[in-house]
Amino acid sequence: MTTHQFQPHHYHTTIGSHPPVLRIHPGDSVMTSTVDARGADSSGQPITAPGNPMTGPFYVDGAEPGDTLVVHLDKLRPNRPFGWTRTMVAPNVVDPEQVPRLPWPEEGKELANWRVDNDAGTATLVAPQTRLGALTLPLAPMSGCFGVAPARGEAISTATSGPHGGNMDYRGFVEGVTVYLPVFVPGALFHIGDGHALQGDGEIVGTGIEISFDVSFSVDVQKSRRIFWPRGENEDYIFAAGNARPLDQATQHATTEMIRWLEQELELDPVGAHILMGQTVEYDIGNIYDPAYTMICKLPKAVLP
Amino acid sequence: MTTHQFQPHHYHTTIGSHPPVLRIHPGDSVMTSTVDARGADSSGQPITAPGNPMTGPFYVDGAEPGDTLVVHLDKLRPNRPFGWTRTMVAPNVVDPEQVPRLPWPEEGKELANWRVDNDAGTATLVAPQTRLGALTLPLAPMSGCFGVAPARGEAISTATSGPHGGNMDYRGFVEGVTVYLPVFVPGALFHIGDGHALQGDGEIVGTGIEISFDVSFSVDVQKSRRIFWPRGENEDYIFAAGNARPLDQATQHATTEMIRWLEQELELDPVGAHILMGQTVEYDIGNIYDPAYTMICKLPKAVLP
Amino acid sequence: MTTHQFQPHHYHTTIGSHPPVLRIHPGDSVMTSTVDARGADSSGQPITAPGNPMTGPFYVDGAEPGDTLVVHLDKLRPNRPFGWTRTMVAPNVVDPEQVPRLPWPEEGKELANWRVDNDAGTATLVAPQTRLGALTLPLAPMSGCFGVAPARGEAISTATSGPHGGNMDYRGFVEGVTVYLPVFVPGALFHIGDGHALQGDGEIVGTGIEISFDVSFSVDVQKSRRIFWPRGENEDYIFAAGNARPLDQATQHATTEMIRWLEQELELDPVGAHILMGQTVEYDIGNIYDPAYTMICKLPKAVLP
Amino acid sequence: MTTHQFQPHHYHTTIGSHPPVLRIHPGDSVMTSTVDARGADSSGQPITAPGNPMTGPFYVDGAEPGDTLVVHLDKLRPNRPFGWTRTMVAPNVVDPEQVPRLPWPEEGKELANWRVDNDAGTATLVAPQTRLGALTLPLAPMSGCFGVAPARGEAISTATSGPHGGNMDYRGFVEGVTVYLPVFVPGALFHIGDGHALQGDGEIVGTGIEISFDVSFSVDVQKSRRIFWPRGENEDYIFAAGNARPLDQATQHATTEMIRWLEQELELDPVGAHILMGQTVEYDIGNIYDPAYTMICKLPKAVLP
Repeated sequence: MTTHQFQPHHYHTTIGSHPPVLRIHPGDSVMTSTVDARGADSSGQPITAPGNPMTGPFYVDGAEPGDTLVVHLDKLRPNRPFGWTRTMVAPNVVDPEQVPRLPWPEEGKELANWRVDNDAGTATLVAPQTRLGALTLPLAPMSGCFGVAPARGEAISTATSGPHGGNMDYRGFVEGVTVYLPVFVPGALFHIGDGHALQGDGEIVGTGIEISFDVSFSVDVQKSRRIFWPRGENEDYIFAAGNARPLDQATQHATTEMIRWLEQELELDPVGAHILMGQTVEYDIGNIYDPAYTMICKLPKAVLP
Repeated sequence: MTTHQFQPHHYHTTIGSHPPVLRIHPGDSVMTSTVDARGADSSGQPITAPGNPMTGPFYVDGAEPGDTLVVHLDKLRPNRPFGWTRTMVAPNVVDPEQVPRLPWPEEGKELANWRVDNDAGTATLVAPQTRLGALTLPLAPMSGCFGVAPARGEAISTATSGPHGGNMDYRGFVEGVTVYLPVFVPGALFHIGDGHALQGDGEIVGTGIEISFDVSFSVDVQKSRRIFWPRGENEDYIFAAGNARPLDQATQHATTEMIRWLEQELELDPVGAHILMGQTVEYDIGNIYDPAYTMICKLPKAVLP
Repeated sequence: MTTHQFQPHHYHTTIGSHPPVLRIHPGDSVMTSTVDARGADSSGQPITAPGNPMTGPFYVDGAEPGDTLVVHLDKLRPNRPFGWTRTMVAPNVVDPEQVPRLPWPEEGKELANWRVDNDAGTATLVAPQTRLGALTLPLAPMSGCFGVAPARGEAISTATSGPHGGNMDYRGFVEGVTVYLPVFVPGALFHIGDGHALQGDGEIVGTGIEISFDVSFSVDVQKSRRIFWPRGENEDYIFAAGNARPLDQATQHATTEMIRWLEQELELDPVGAHILMGQTVEYDIGNIYDPAYTMICKLPKAVLP
Repeated sequence: MTTHQFQPHHYHTTIGSHPPVLRIHPGDSVMTSTVDARGADSSGQPITAPGNPMTGPFYVDGAEPGDTLVVHLDKLRPNRPFGWTRTMVAPNVVDPEQVPRLPWPEEGKELANWRVDNDAGTATLVAPQTRLGALTLPLAPMSGCFGVAPARGEAISTATSGPHGGNMDYRGFVEGVTVYLPVFVPGALFHIGDGHALQGDGEIVGTGIEISFDVSFSVDVQKSRRIFWPRGENEDYIFAAGNARPLDQATQHATTEMIRWLEQELELDPVGAHILMGQTVEYDIGNIYDPAYTMICKLPKAVLP
C-alpha cells in the first residue's frame, strides 16, 4: 500500500504499450500531475506536443489480460488559475445546412479564456467579450481521457476512444469515482490526462475548460473478472461506457455491457434484468465531438437487488 | 378562458389533418382522458385499435402555419390502478451479436403487469416472477406521444416522431411543463395520448408502464414565432427536441434548435451563445426504440442572461 | 387485359389512401403522364404544387393487405426537350467542416438547365457557364418516386421513402424493370412520378435531370405473397430496396429482405443462401439526400439455383 | 528502377511505424507474398498469428508527411489452390430482430472451403453441402487490406481502416489499379496483405475467399501532393475511399475527397465540379463488416474535362 509521488518527464498522445514510467502494486496510490490538452503545465507553459498528452503509463503488477483494472480517482484538481475553451459548437452536432451560419472564428481567435478560482470553486469567462459578460460557473473537475493499453499492439490516438477507454469526455469521471477497465496487456498500462475544470455534456465545442491537474489515484486488480467496456461506480450509480460512432452503436455497447453486469455479476435473472433496465435505466452523453462518441448507460444503486 | 370537458369517442393512430373533435380558443383549457398504448381505457377494456391511439385533434382558433402552439400540461395522471410493460430490451439497442442471447419471451408472455397506486405514488411489479420480487418504483407520469398535424397533408404514424412531435417518449414531458410546437396547418390540430406511469430513459423495452390517463392542458398561440422542432420549458430548464435516426441526427436537430432559441429569441450574440452551450448544455435521451429516435438539448435557466 | 389511357387532373405530394383516380384489373396496363418534381408538365408550365407530385393513385382490383403488387415499368420516357438539376452537392454528404466551402448559389441561381434530345438520347448542359461547357450525357430515364399507400392510414410525403416505396431515386428503376411492392390497403393504390432523364448515384445534388414523363405500366397481383420492402427484377438481377437513415439501417433492411427472398421463395437452405450472398451480393446506392436513404441489395440471376 | 524480391519473415496485425523490412526507391518494384487472414501461407500452414497479418512495412525513400505515395498493384494472384470463407451474414447487416434466425454455425463449423483453380480462373465451393452444390464463381483477386503508417504514432489494427487505408475490402483494389495514399511518416511505411480470390460487395460474411497471394507492386512519390483519404485509378474511373461508421460518414469522407480532387487537381470550377458529380457520380460499397465501413466515390474518366 505505497503512495508513489510521480513527476512526469514525458507524455504520450497515443494510449498504447509504451514503456511504463512506474511499476506499482495493487493497493498502491499515485500522486502525479497532468498537462492540459495542448501540453501546457501548471505554469501555462507548453512542455510537450499538443493533443491530450497522457501521463504514464503505469504498470500494475499482477494485471493480466482478462482481468479488470480498478482505478479509484482519489483526487482530480486543477492546479493553476486559468483555463481555455473553444468558442464554436462543432459542425458535426448541428444540422449540415446550418454549418455556414456558425460563428467561425478568425484564425488566432478560436479560444476563450477563463479564470479559475480553485478556492471559490468557480470559473469565470475573461475573454472574448460577449453578452455573457463575466459568466461564472461552478467547477466540476473531471478527467476527459484515461485508459489502458489496447489489445494486439494497437496504439490509439488520445483524440478518440474505444474498449480501452480513451477520450470519453464524460462529466461523470470525477473525484471519488471508481473506474473499471478491461486489461489487455500485462500490467494494464494505465494512462491519464486531459483535465477539465468543468464541461458541458458532449464536449460540443471540442473542449471543456482545459487545464492542468494534480491527480491522485489508487489501483487494484480483479483477477479473472472479464469486462468489455469501461465501467464506473459512484455513490448513487453503476454505469458502463460505450465508445463508437454513431451514438446508436455507442448506446448498443453501453447497454450490452450493463446487461452483462446485471446478469453475470449482480445475479439477476435475464427477465428481471431486462424489466429493471426498461423502467429505471438512465443514459448520459459523453463526448459527441471525437471520432468515436461516448454513451453512458447507468442504473441507480437504489433499484439493484 | 373556457375549460372544456371532452369525452373522446374515437381515436387516431396517426397524427394528421383529421377532423377536429373540438374547437378551442387561446387561453382555453381542456380536461379529457387518454387510452393506453393498446387502446384500453380506465377500466382496462380495449375500446379502440392499438398503437398509441390519440385523443383529439383539438383545433385552436387563430393558430396558423408559422405560429407556435403553446400547450401547458396542467395534469397528467394515471386513472386506473394497473399498467403494463414489455419485458425485453429491444434488439436495436444491444450489440447485434448479442441479440440471440436476449430473453425472448414465449408468445403470449411478452408483458409484465404492474399495480399502480396513485395515492401512494408507486408502481409495483406483479408478474412475471423474477428476482426483482415486488419491485416498487415511484410514479413519474409523462405523456409519451403528442403533437400537431404535420405539413403538406402528411398523416404520420404515432409509432414515430418528427418536427410535429409524435412518439418522443421523453421523461421530461410531465405535468407542469410548457410545450411549444410549430404550427403547420390552420388550427394546429393538437393530439395527445400514450400515458406512462413512469419510464426509463430511451423506452428501451418499447414501453413505459403503459396506462390510461386523465389529462388537462391549456393552450395559447404565439403569432409569427416560428420554431422548427418541439420545445419545452420547466422551472429549471429550457429544452428542444430533435427526432430522427441515427441519434447523431436527432442531436443535430436539437442542438440547432437550441442555438436558434439563444440567438434569435434570447438575444445572445452567436459567440456568447456557443461559449455558453459548450460549457453548460445537457442532453437527455428520449426514445431510442422507435423508427425516429429523440434527443433533448437543454440549458439551465440559471445560466441564461 | 385492358390498356387504359389516363390523363391526370390533379396530383398528390403524399403517398396515401387518397381516392383512386382509376380502377384497374390485374393484367391491365395504364398509359399516363407525370409532371416534374416542381409540378411542371410537358410544356414546362407548373400545373400543380411542387414537391414530387404523384400521378394516381390507381386502385388494383383484388389487391389486399398481405399480397404483393407487381408493376411492370413498360415505358418511362421524357416528354419534353428540357430538364433541370440543382448545382450543389448537398451538405449532408460532405464532411461537416467543409460545408462552408461549398458553392452555395445565390438566390434564384440554384438551378442548372439541360437540353434533352430524346431522339439522340442525350442531355446537354445549357446553363450555367462552367468549365464543363456543353457537357453531354447519355439519357437513362428512371422514376425517382413511386409506391403504394402505406399501412394504418399514414400519408407519407413524397420527399421520403419507406416500406411502401416512395422517393427512392434509384437509377435501376428504369423501363423494363418489374417492381414488387407490399400491399397494405385494399387496391394497393399505386402512385408514380418524379421522372429523371438521368441521375448520378445517390441523387447527391438533390435532383436528377428533372423532367416530365410519358409513363406506361402494367400491373398484376400475387395473392398471399408477403414481402416487406420494395423489390425488383431486371434481365440480370433480382434486387431489394431498404429505406431508412442511416445508410447502415437501409442496408440492414435490404439485406434482410434479400435473405427472405432466397430462403423463403427461392428455396435455398439458410447456409447456402448466406454463403451465396457473401461472395456474390452487390449493393447499389439509391438516394442519400432525402430524410430516408435507400440501399439496394442485389444478386445476379446467373448465380441463383 | 530496381525490382526487389522480398521474402517476408514476420508479419504485423497493426499498421504502424514498425521497423521497415526493406528500403526502396521511387520507381522500384517489389515482388513478395502475403499470407491469408488467419496467417496461413501458400502451403496452408499457419506461420503467424491470425487477424489480417501484413507483409512489410516497406520504406519508400523520399516520402515525407504531406506527400502522396503512389502504389501500382502490378500483380495480385492467389498462390495456392484452396481458400475459405465464413458462412453467415454478419449480424450488423441484418435487421436486429432477425438476428436470432440467422444460421449460427456450430463451433468448429464456421468456415466454408473452396477449391481455387488459378488456371481456369474459378473458385468452387467444396464444403459444406448445401443446395448450392459445387457453386463455381469466376476469380476476381483483390487486396482487402493495405496502407501506410498513420500519423502521431498510432498503430491501427488491420481489422479496421482509416485515412491511412487499412482493411477496406473494396472489390476494386485489383491488379492494374493505381492507389494513392497520404504519407504521414517519413518513408510512408507501406503494408499489404489480406488477399481475396473473390468477394461480394461489403464482405458481409466477414470474408472474401481468403487466400495467400503472390504480390508485386511498384511505388512512386508525389512530392507535396496532399490528399486526405486513399484514392485510386483504373482504366475507366478515378475513385476515393472514405472509411468510418456509419456509412453516412464514410460517404461524406469519400465525397469530400472527390470534390477536392476535381476542384484542386482537375481544375474544375466549383459549380462545374458539383454539377458534374450530381449527374455522373457512382458509389461502391467496400466493407460493411469491420469497425469502420468503407464507401467509394467514383467518377468515369470519360466525363472528366
